[in-house]
Formats: sequence, C-alpha cells, structure tokens
Amino acid sequence: MQRLKVNLGERSYFINIEAGILERTGEIIKEINSGKQVFLVSNPTVFPLYGEKVTDSLKRAGFNVETAFMPDGERYKNLHEAMKILDKAVEFNLERSSVVAALGGGVVGDLAGFVAAIYQRGVDFVQIPTTLLSQVDSSVGGKVAVNHPQGKNLIGSFHQPRTVIIDPITLNTLEEKEYKNGLGEVVKYGLIYDAEFFNFLEENANAIKNKEPDVVVEIIYRSCAIKSIIVEKDEKEAGIRALLNLGHTFGHALEKLTDYEVYGHGEALVMGTVAAAFLARDKKHIGDAELVRIINLYKKLDIYKPFPLIDPEQVYSAMLNDKKVMKGRLRLVLPNSIGSCLITDEADKIEIINAIKKAQQGI
Amino acid sequence: MQRLKVNLGERSYFINIEAGILERTGEIIKEINSGKQVFLVSNPTVFPLYGEKVTDSLKRAGFNVETAFMPDGERYKNLHEAMKILDKAVEFNLERSSVVAALGGGVVGDLAGFVAAIYQRGVDFVQIPTTLLSQVDSSVGGKVAVNHPQGKNLIGSFHQPRTVIIDPITLNTLEEKEYKNGLGEVVKYGLIYDAEFFNFLEENANAIKNKEPDVVVEIIYRSCAIKSIIVEKDEKEAGIRALLNLGHTFGHALEKLTDYEVYGHGEALVMGTVAAAFLARDKKHIGDAELVRIINLYKKLDIYKPFPLIDPEQVYSAMLNDKKVMKGRLRLVLPNSIGSCLITDEADKIEIINAIKKAQQGI
Repeated sequence: MQRLKVNLGERSYFINIEAGILERTGEIIKEINSGKQVFLVSNPTVFPLYGEKVTDSLKRAGFNVETAFMPDGERYKNLHEAMKILDKAVEFNLERSSVVAALGGGVVGDLAGFVAAIYQRGVDFVQIPTTLLSQVDSSVGGKVAVNHPQGKNLIGSFHQPRTVIIDPITLNTLEEKEYKNGLGEVVKYGLIYDAEFFNFLEENANAIKNKEPDVVVEIIYRSCAIKSIIVEKDEKEAGIRALLNLGHTFGHALEKLTDYEVYGHGEALVMGTVAAAFLARDKKHIGDAELVRIINLYKKLDIYKPFPLIDPEQVYSAMLNDKKVMKGRLRLVLPNSIGSCLITDEADKIEIINAIKKAQQGI
Repeated sequence: MQRLKVNLGERSYFINIEAGILERTGEIIKEINSGKQVFLVSNPTVFPLYGEKVTDSLKRAGFNVETAFMPDGERYKNLHEAMKILDKAVEFNLERSSVVAALGGGVVGDLAGFVAAIYQRGVDFVQIPTTLLSQVDSSVGGKVAVNHPQGKNLIGSFHQPRTVIIDPITLNTLEEKEYKNGLGEVVKYGLIYDAEFFNFLEENANAIKNKEPDVVVEIIYRSCAIKSIIVEKDEKEAGIRALLNLGHTFGHALEKLTDYEVYGHGEALVMGTVAAAFLARDKKHIGDAELVRIINLYKKLDIYKPFPLIDPEQVYSAMLNDKKVMKGRLRLVLPNSIGSCLITDEADKIEIINAIKKAQQGI
C-alpha cells in the first residue's frame, strides 16, 4: 500500500492508495475514529458498484452503517441537497463521534464533506473517491462546498478529511469521459509545480491513456503528493495554494454559463488552462514554445478541446463573480514556465478577452 | 477601554468593552481587516437603535456598508434564513476580504457568524453584541450555528470572530426580561469556574439588578475573561469547554419542547441548572448547602423560576437528541462545588427524571 501523509499538525491524515483497498475501508477508518456509526453518503451510480464491499468492510470493523444518496451530477451539489443529507444525519441520530464517509466522485465528496463540516459543528470525515478527478484533487486538502446559483463552491468550509482511501480499481468502471476529466488536473500538477512530472506525463501519455495499472497508481500518487505539499504550506489558501486554481477562474465561468451541464470540471479546466496559457504568452510570462508544449500534452492525452464559442464578454463577466476577485480585480494564476506559475492581478479586461478569443481559435 | 485578549494563536482576537464604543466600530474593524466592504447583519428591532451610529462609524473608516436584516427571534435562527442572508451576500458581491458583522443579540450573532463561516469558505467575522446574554456568552468563542427542527445549534461551525465590540450602553434599551436572560449565564461562570466571582455576584446582587454601570462592566468583563480562559484551553470543545454547557442539556430540551417560543435561552438555562444542581445533590457531588446557595443567588437576582411542569419523560427524550450524547449515553455537566463542575455520563434515566421532578417542586 502507498501511504502519503498530509502534515497539518493535529489535522494530519494519510492518503491510502492501493488496488483492492476498498475491502479494508473499515479497518482504516477504525484507525482514526473510535465511534460506532458511519454515515455513508453516495449516489445511485456508484453505490451499486462498490457500496456493498465498503459496507461489509465497515460492519466487519464493528461500525453501524447508515446510507444516504444524493442524485448524480454537479447540479445537485447545492444547499438544498445538502439539507436533505443533513436531515438524514439527524434522522439517524448521528453523533459527534460519528463518521461521515463520501463514496463517489467530487460532487459527493464536496457535499458530504460540507455536511460533515457543519453537522454538530463538525464530525470526522472520510473521503473514498471513485473518480480520477476526485482522487487527485478534491478528496485531498479539505475544501468542501456546495454551489450557489451565482457561483461554484460559493458556500463551504475548510474541513480536512481524517483519512482518504483511494482504490485505483474503481477507475475501471469509470466512463472514459470522466477519466479524461481527471487527467486535466493531473497535467495541472506538473504545470504548476513539477517539470519532471510534466516530462513523465509526456513520456507516458500512451500508457496513461490505456490506464496501465502501474502508471495510474504513479500519477495518482504523484498528483496527491504535489497537492499535499501545497496544502501543507498554505492550508487556508492565503497564498501559494491559490496556484491550484490555474485555469479555474476561466473554467468556472464556462461551467457556470452552461449551468454545469455541458462541460465536466476537468474539461472546463483544460479549456481554462489553455486560455490562461495564451494570456501568459501574451504577457510574456512564457514563450510560444511553452504554450505549444502545454497544448501538445493535452493533445497527446486526447483531452485537448478548444475554448467554446461563448461571447468572451460574457465569460469575463462570469469570471468577475468568482471567489478569486480581490478588491474588484481579477486575480489569475498564469504559468511562467513548465513547472511553475505566478498569481497576478495585472491582466486587464481587454487582455483577458483577447486571450479567450485566441483560445477559441486554438493553434 | 477594557481590552481582553483571547489567545488562540493565529485566531487570537480582542474583546473591546467600553461605554460608547459603538461610535468607534469602524476604526476597531480597520485594525483587523484591510478590505473595503462590511456586510452588517442585524434585525428590525436593534438596527433602528444603533444601526446609524455603527454605519456612520464604518463609513468614516472608509468601508462600504451593506445591510441585511433577519427577523427578530430564536425561531428564525434556521438554515432557511441563513440562505436568505447568503443570497444577499452574493448579491452584494461580498469578497473573501470582506467582513460580516453581526449587530444584535445571540440569534443575529450565531446566524451571521454561520454565514461568515461558510460564505466562500469563511470571511472575517465581527461580533457587536447588544444583549447581555450575547455579550457574555455567544459573541466570544467562535461557536456559530443555526437550529434544526430536531435540535438547537445542530448545524454550525467553529468560526472565531476577528474582534468583539461590546458597548454596555446597549443594555439600557434592553428589555428587563432579556437582561435577566443574560444574568443566568453570568451566574454560570461563577458556578463552573470562579467561586470568588460567585461571591461577588451574591454581594452585588442589588447593584446588578439596578444595572449600575460600573458593576455591569465588571460582570461583562469577568464573564468574558472566564469564557476566554476556557475557550483558550479547548477551542473545539474536546474537553473542558463542555463545562460551559452546565444546565444546557436540560435547558435545550425545554426550549425545543416549547418550540423556542416560551422561554428565553437564559431562562431555560436557569431552570436547567437547577435541575442539574438537584441531580448533583442527589448524586452527592454537592450538598444541600450548595444547592440552596445556587437557588438563592438566582432568587436574589430575581431570575429564579421552577422547572416547568412538562412530562419529565418527554424532557428526557428531548435531551437524548442533544449534541452532548456520546455513544448513546447522556453526558451532563454537574456542579461539584461552588466554582467547579464535572462532566459525567453516570446519571441514569431514572435519576435524571427524579431530578427534573424535584426541580419542578423547587425548594
């Protein structure tokens, strides 16, 4: 088993990665919680695949298990659904010493984590992510939230999981589209922090596309490791953690303008990163060579898509509603080489709109 | 000005106490926040009294001020009202660098604080409590929450204020009933932690009843000081902080059974503490003398009321739904002398029900 420690003082936890680990869910949770109840939150897509395995393991470890489902899909990540899950938690007499565990992708993890954060002012939370995107991104770092009609993740908390259980076998049942969704985040880690990992992705693009088991474990492990380092340095996103938002301000705007129904988060992220890369090139933070290398890696992994033909003015307006606005100026993360990024509020509206137009044309 | 520091590392803050301090709200907030927006949450009872003074001061300090009201009353401290305030925050384009300030009693503070905790995963929060109860209790310590139909404060967070601004002059416009509501908490501090303060309250009972300004500042200051010490030792209520819940499990049950409409929180607290005191006497943690002394102080302060004639079985059931249940056992705080308490799960149902019956009869 690969075990990665996220060092956050009294909020430290392990990320446990291993094929088949779902069968040991109970014993792993037992390590960090001495209560007797696990409230398992999932959805009707994931639960039939892995619910029984997880529930059996929890029961073997001596837990009472209660289950609640939320509908599958980003548009259900809202306060209304969170309230329904909270009602279930109350109905089950969930105690302060109980565990809320999320079995599913990022939507389930974000919503269940938010419920864990605000139920009785916070109970133990366990992430059991079953999509590549959630395994490498949302399950680590403690950001939990629901969407508001006016913006993504506008309502939420920082609530670190007590442990994260990642079984790469779950990727075998994942739709191709969802797998690709996750690869966008994987590339992001190389781009913002680790040129060597970016090289690794370029060199192993085919193996990654083919989901070769060893390579899959490697990209999950290295992505989580990079995310952990960044979260350890800046748990509450006062500084460096904002680098993780590369492409997100553009991407969130796209998701919002299409009601979270047209593009997956990873897909929107790729499109957003391409726009950010064009902007970075225009502002001379990177050269043409880096811009091309970024787009080419996306192409090799078969996840490249040009920025959709939505009115750039509209995209810009939606960006202004994002959380990353500081004193009325857009704060953007832009690459300034392969393996490092900067945060800037020096891009003007016209420059941002031009970058969107270029990303729409592509190269 | 009396300034009391709550030492919580990077979450440390000051409690500022002074007659007339509301006029300096802006400059005090400026000390801890460099943003440009203050979102002032209040209610239609308090705002006409102090809203202009606070708003003017904020504007003089250079803040843009937006205001939102929630209805006055504990029954509005729910997720539905919180969502309305969140919608207003979104509408005003509140940023991460903005401040949410609560001007009002504990209901406003708890709800606005919860909004501050979950808006964009947490923004700066300022408490400007205008009731004795909120000045000595809920404005200090970072517990923020809303009620759920099944229990009080079931949904919430720990979100420390960045500063607390207490103007004792606000007590002059406070209903007598609300003032007495706060005295119940004041007595609690003496009872759980400070025998000398308990003596002070006994000796100054008349001055306290007459709201003599110096004595009022003294009881606010000393109550906040005791609460601060306890919060500093145990911010997240893993241990000693639970002592602050003396009388609360009984009291919450009473409030819940009467839909939060019959008894004020402080009133329910006094009734609950009397029940806890009877139970403590029955279990020999205190003697008859202490029981009588507790009840007599309530009588001197004119806040004693016998436990209402609600079926004790019903009260017990409601207590079981409280957050203080651990592995199915009720954890209760009981006095074990004047000035100290213990936490125990060794009281059986029958003992608890008997204590309730005795508290109904009184002495």
